Amino acid sequence: MQPSTSPTRFAYLGPEGTFAEAALSSVIDTGEGTRNPRSSVPATLAAVRSGDADAGLVPLENSVEGSVPATMDGLADGDPLVITREVFLPVAFTLAVRPGTTLADVRSVASHPHALAQTGRWLEANLPGITPLPASSTAGAAAAVAAGEYDAAVCAAIAAQRYGLDALAEGIADHAGAVTRFVLVARPGPLPAPTGNDKTSLVAVVTDRTGALLDVLREFAVRGISLTRIESRPLRDRLWVYSFFLDCEGHIADRRVGEALAALHRVCEDVRFLGSYPRSDGRENRAVEDESADDAFAEAEGWLARVRAGDLGG
Amino acid sequence: MQPSTSPTRFAYLGPEGTFAEAALSSVIDTGEGTRNPRSSVPATLAAVRSGDADAGLVPLENSVEGSVPATMDGLADGDPLVITREVFLPVAFTLAVRPGTTLADVRSVASHPHALAQTGRWLEANLPGITPLPASSTAGAAAAVAAGEYDAAVCAAIAAQRYGLDALAEGIADHAGAVTRFVLVARPGPLPAPTGNDKTSLVAVVTDRTGALLDVLREFAVRGISLTRIESRPLRDRLWVYSFFLDCEGHIADRRVGEALAALHRVCEDVRFLGSYPRSDGRENRAVEDESADDAFAEAEGWLARVRAGDLGG
Amino acid sequence: MQPSTSPTRFAYLGPEGTFAEAALSSVIDTGEGTRNPRSSVPATLAAVRSGDADAGLVPLENSVEGSVPATMDGLADGDPLVITREVFLPVAFTLAVRPGTTLADVRSVASHPHALAQTGRWLEANLPGITPLPASSTAGAAAAVAAGEYDAAVCAAIAAQRYGLDALAEGIADHAGAVTRFVLVARPGPLPAPTGNDKTSLVAVVTDRTGALLDVLREFAVRGISLTRIESRPLRDRLWVYSFFLDCEGHIADRRVGEALAALHRVCEDVRFLGSYPRSDGRENRAVEDESADDAFAEAEGWLARVRAGDLGG
Amino acid sequence: MQPSTSPTRFAYLGPEGTFAEAALSSVIDTGEGTRNPRSSVPATLAAVRSGDADAGLVPLENSVEGSVPATMDGLADGDPLVITREVFLPVAFTLAVRPGTTLADVRSVASHPHALAQTGRWLEANLPGITPLPASSTAGAAAAVAAGEYDAAVCAAIAAQRYGLDALAEGIADHAGAVTRFVLVARPGPLPAPTGNDKTSLVAVVTDRTGALLDVLREFAVRGISLTRIESRPLRDRLWVYSFFLDCEGHIADRRVGEALAALHRVCEDVRFLGSYPRSDGRENRAVEDESADDAFAEAEGWLARVRAGDLGG
Repeated sequence: MQPSTSPTRFAYLGPEGTFAEAALSSVIDTGEGTRNPRSSVPATLAAVRSGDADAGLVPLENSVEGSVPATMDGLADGDPLVITREVFLPVAFTLAVRPGTTLADVRSVASHPHALAQTGRWLEANLPGITPLPASSTAGAAAAVAAGEYDAAVCAAIAAQRYGLDALAEGIADHAGAVTRFVLVARPGPLPAPTGNDKTSLVAVVTDRTGALLDVLREFAVRGISLTRIESRPLRDRLWVYSFFLDCEGHIADRRVGEALAALHRVCEDVRFLGSYPRSDGRENRAVEDESADDAFAEAEGWLARVRAGDLGG
Repeated sequence: MQPSTSPTRFAYLGPEGTFAEAALSSVIDTGEGTRNPRSSVPATLAAVRSGDADAGLVPLENSVEGSVPATMDGLADGDPLVITREVFLPVAFTLAVRPGTTLADVRSVASHPHALAQTGRWLEANLPGITPLPASSTAGAAAAVAAGEYDAAVCAAIAAQRYGLDALAEGIADHAGAVTRFVLVARPGPLPAPTGNDKTSLVAVVTDRTGALLDVLREFAVRGISLTRIESRPLRDRLWVYSFFLDCEGHIADRRVGEALAALHRVCEDVRFLGSYPRSDGRENRAVEDESADDAFAEAEGWLARVRAGDLGG
Repeated sequence: MQPSTSPTRFAYLGPEGTFAEAALSSVIDTGEGTRNPRSSVPATLAAVRSGDADAGLVPLENSVEGSVPATMDGLADGDPLVITREVFLPVAFTLAVRPGTTLADVRSVASHPHALAQTGRWLEANLPGITPLPASSTAGAAAAVAAGEYDAAVCAAIAAQRYGLDALAEGIADHAGAVTRFVLVARPGPLPAPTGNDKTSLVAVVTDRTGALLDVLREFAVRGISLTRIESRPLRDRLWVYSFFLDCEGHIADRRVGEALAALHRVCEDVRFLGSYPRSDGRENRAVEDESADDAFAEAEGWLARVRAGDLGG
Repeated sequence: MQPSTSPTRFAYLGPEGTFAEAALSSVIDTGEGTRNPRSSVPATLAAVRSGDADAGLVPLENSVEGSVPATMDGLADGDPLVITREVFLPVAFTLAVRPGTTLADVRSVASHPHALAQTGRWLEANLPGITPLPASSTAGAAAAVAAGEYDAAVCAAIAAQRYGLDALAEGIADHAGAVTRFVLVARPGPLPAPTGNDKTSLVAVVTDRTGALLDVLREFAVRGISLTRIESRPLRDRLWVYSFFLDCEGHIADRRVGEALAALHRVCEDVRFLGSYPRSDGRENRAVEDESADDAFAEAEGWLARVRAGDLGG
């Protein structure tokens, strides 16, 4: 049964004004709960594990920067956590300055190195001759601008707003269309109900042998399940053992997905379920073939029970 | 639950004295029931279907002559029947004559063409110059010898015995070691209990497309099930549709076999279960891998139920 | 290079007047060569192997009676032979009598047991009370009718014609549409040229292990090749080793087929090539996917050569 | 054609004193060529593409931080480059200070955020109360310490040495055993010769459909090739198309690898070869099965040629 109250205490990868806060705000109304920034992904996950927070929002992958290992490892190790929601946020960088500052006034610009890397061409073109300075976070850079430390920060719009800065330029990323995928994680509990357009995440650990991954993927293919992401990751502490992070279409409550995961549980060294949650990237799952639909599984199960009971309907 | 009384009325492919009767006698004590020959495989199966007989013994394949299409088709079509037992009988041909006849006396020899084909080299070497004559069955040839129609018959030892003939020579087959596999079939009912060394037979009907058979076999392979026989057979009445006769190791009561058959039920045009029964060819099934054993399936199912309930054991 | 003269001495499964002769006549003009019946399938194949005949016509499978083991084994063992042509012949049974005989006059009927089995219902309906008698062959029964031994024979139209009999009834098979597939075999030599609609036959021998057959089929599937027939057959003399008779679409001169066969040669215990020849069952092979066409193989091979040479076209 | 002299102008991800320079030094003698740092991965690759450098050293993945997207994307897009060597470097962080500084003197510490993340626990334990400051690179932090800007830098030993700093503490990473994999890339040209223990890297682009990845992996599995790494990566500009970064065992000069890559060339939207080079992670490739060895391919090819020519060795 769903708990009577929704999560109300949210943790997120801080500081205030980061893209993580923007992502959280995009899905949770301001009045819906308290939200507290944490200094790192591990700290955010730890807050959820300890019960200090009911749910935590962390980045999982970025279309330009790739996976976020701290999140992957943080979910794969330690007490179980599950993803209950995914949130996609366009990476929209703003050049934030104190009110009244013009582009010509800017003598120094700061941001997190990742943000600087993604806006390098714009900065070179528009602020030639100025060497960008590293900051601990995009939001931290904005705070430093507000404090008069630098003239400009590359940050999220929400950070500019929070620190009373003006957006001198928006959408300054070199690659248009970059997007970050965040996930909201919680301690295990009742799963989000299937919506008909869900994803399931898991980590499968297999002993290294030729064809091992093929065998894992086959369990999905024979049941008509599409994968949306795969990433191998060597285990830190076990030679010749690999873990695979997999996202597939469907919900563990779907029979095809449930049977596939049970099969992995049999054939893998280890399987960790990381959650079934609504797909939120604006795409629809591939239509499920009749033969892989819940009805087909139910029908087949009924047939098997009858055959085993000696009733062949003759 | 097993019916309180075992089958007592047996039909078999006659006439009396055929290898089918010998096979039946090898597994059923004489006093255990009545046994009646039928004129053909279809007639034997029809007797079981109609209830005139409780079980019927028919040949399924011969190591020299191959499959017996009448049996395959007879099981694949019509009201369902299931194999409850398989019986392997060495093909041991006897040259049967009336008492007192010597090899030098033999001027004519008769048998079923299949039997003549399998003893051709012996006959040519030992009865040179004599053209073997066709008979409707090996037992019929023996009866005709007893009636004085021919001097010798190539038949089963049981036929010689039944018709009061002497065996002038035994083991006269050209290929030593030939064996016929018979099956005892019955109307659907409680299945034979698993013995730990069972086989399961089925017919899978698939629409013709590249890889269709591969997909069928994959359902066995992913669950660690070995096949012992496969034969494709075009359907008489449907273009571009194939049926496959498959024997696999294991019993439908085994979870791996049950799940595989349920999967075929989903993905095939049609699946007909033909029975799970003790393996009787003197071989042991391949050892079941831990990951495919019933325990592993039960454990995985329990894990899945817990995960679906939100209990990740953290 | 093709020999300048086509085969001129044909052997076939006799005696004269069998369906094999009818099949041969359907594809070879009467004047095109000599033709001699042989007493059995092994004798026919032996005639080709020894050079007594240039080619031999034997039955391979029948849609009602199944495979012809003597042919399968005869091709799988002994000196290599290759199929150069397949011939499909409708199984059309005729009730042949001496001229002047009416149905009411018929007191005895004879034929090969297989033919009697396939016309059982017609005989029972039209000649009630008459027990059919076995003969060594359908043609032999016709000869015996001509000799006055029996009143009627179930045989091929060609046999009636050859022995001066009249067809009292035609098309008397119980199953309409039955067809026999014959093959013309020859000693190895230049292969028939690809026609764009060919079949390839082979025997693959594999050590028995779970998934062994799957691995064989995979070699076809990865290269987009459809199978049209498969039959497992235990080896007579080697325990735990199976042979599979396979027919696939395409010609060994096709790159996809050649590569698949070479792969089987690597991974199987043994592979015996049984020929590539025009498909003659009135069906067209499945369209070859672009990615499996010769062009794609040639293009990929060129690419590989360039890459290996360090030329990445940049 | 091979240039007459080995590469002498190396580019690497700078600035001087980074781990990339340390990696380069570990495999190239100081006197063997010139080496120039570049400001970023793209700049390093661009220097190689333009011919300003003969080879470039960039990080590809880190056992803690995961893949380096800039390198992956930089190799996947643009003019072809190939990996000619891989270099594994233990991630060994040093706390570097100006000579004479003690731990108690340290009031400020700086480094690249990634390095700070990987030494967070050590810093908290040994420099409590001090908030680490971000720098553009670990080497840049060392330079800033030398300039008196900060008291300490978390950097590579090589950076301390280069900037005249002392190592106050060594091996301060939180996770022992972290390692970074660098690759040396060059413009296409003659490939490194096979050593018997090689790896091959490639990018395969496939249209999204259920089982697409399975089909890719199958091309390796049927040829007995083990994968050592896989990572899916959505294409930035094409919806529903995925690219997979794959590392496999073996050299493209090996027949099994060559045939697998040619197969991918046929079945994938696109395949980009990224190089075959000696494996350098201290592990041996899995032993190649006899059936997948070059000899087996050569033997099978010879067999196929003979069969196609009609020579079946009979």
